[in-house]
Amino acid sequence: MAFVADLRGPALSKEDLHHLLRVLRQRAGDQLTVADGEGRWRTARLDPAEAGALREFGPVCELPPATPPLAVGFALVKGDKPELIVQKLTELGIDRIVPFRAERSVVRWDVAKAAKAVARLRLVARAAAQQCHRPRLPEVADVAEVAALVAAGATLAERGGVPLSLQVPFVLVGPEGGWSVSEGAVAGDRVGLGPHVLRAETAAWTAAVLLTSLRDGTVTPVHNP
Amino acid sequence: MAFVADLRGPALSKEDLHHLLRVLRQRAGDQLTVADGEGRWRTARLDPAEAGALREFGPVCELPPATPPLAVGFALVKGDKPELIVQKLTELGIDRIVPFRAERSVVRWDVAKAAKAVARLRLVARAAAQQCHRPRLPEVADVAEVAALVAAGATLAERGGVPLSLQVPFVLVGPEGGWSVSEGAVAGDRVGLGPHVLRAETAAWTAAVLLTSLRDGTVTPVHNP
Repeated sequence: MAFVADLRGPALSKEDLHHLLRVLRQRAGDQLTVADGEGRWRTARLDPAEAGALREFGPVCELPPATPPLAVGFALVKGDKPELIVQKLTELGIDRIVPFRAERSVVRWDVAKAAKAVARLRLVARAAAQQCHRPRLPEVADVAEVAALVAAGATLAERGGVPLSLQVPFVLVGPEGGWSVSEGAVAGDRVGLGPHVLRAETAAWTAAVLLTSLRDGTVTPVHNP
Repeated sequence: MAFVADLRGPALSKEDLHHLLRVLRQRAGDQLTVADGEGRWRTARLDPAEAGALREFGPVCELPPATPPLAVGFALVKGDKPELIVQKLTELGIDRIVPFRAERSVVRWDVAKAAKAVARLRLVARAAAQQCHRPRLPEVADVAEVAALVAAGATLAERGGVPLSLQVPFVLVGPEGGWSVSEGAVAGDRVGLGPHVLRAETAAWTAAVLLTSLRDGTVTPVHNP
């Protein structure tokens, strides 16, 4: 699958064409799916006559958004962990991914660095969605503050919290050092992700697995609503 | 937390002492937990007089094994993915981790290379258990064959399979290319991990999150047994 700017007259970017030919070993004439990132997709064939051109388009199909929409926020962490978090949350089907600053975050990014990092995370989400054939891209939000996210309905994850359910569709996973006193003060109930000590990225993936599995009906909540 | 060879007269290895002092910044006189990897642990203090020596031991405590024991097998994959899989499965509380050869595995290891890789994976499990304060180490099994694992009660994971439950406590996650015809022929029912296409490592983590969450009571199975 490849994302295109315009599904009515789709053309592949140079990077996506390269990926299809070199990594996925597709050849001229092969069928592929092109999608607009908003849930619409159609089949097409690689045109042997012109690199990156497409022909023989199928009808435009649409995958309706899954409900409820699910969001996971994660405290900024060092190294390649934000990319791994975004890649896996995209694969698992989370709709909105929100990096945030926590008081105990090790990372201190200025505005320019945060903008650059988020742009990079959006590319990671796009590549992961292509790889996993998800025609709908998750939104990767700008870096936010905990208090604003709680005000917007987010719930903090913490050991000992109540079990997850779809009544809590927006979960924030804190930094390895935990939530600060002032962050805890703004929040209401906490949700728990199980009894174990988890690293930040493992906690984000766990929240995503449980939320999407509850939505998909693979498991049911402890207290049925 | 640090693992020791003998809980009755524990002493730290050079590597663990280095980690405690340099990475975790503990100092002589600080309290820590030492564990035997089989569920028993006690508190102790770093002896200021002798590097690696311990004193002021607390009583030996024991964490009983969680029931049922849970096992996840994964097809050998390239690069650092086996290490990431073992690290996360250990954190999540899986009791037995089984790397296996699948017909569509990209990786073809000879006996010597497989033994070396498994020894390395055991060190990864040990480090992850220390980091997450798990006094019981998971077993990292030798590289196995699919048919033998199915004969021992393992169930293959595949899209469209029945929802996971604790009646299926040993799940095998296949290679990215899927199961071969002959591998499918030896198996009975399949379990599903949800509707999405998942990379091999994401599928292994998803199985681990769902199995441990079912055991911990964080979620309940779709069909209550």
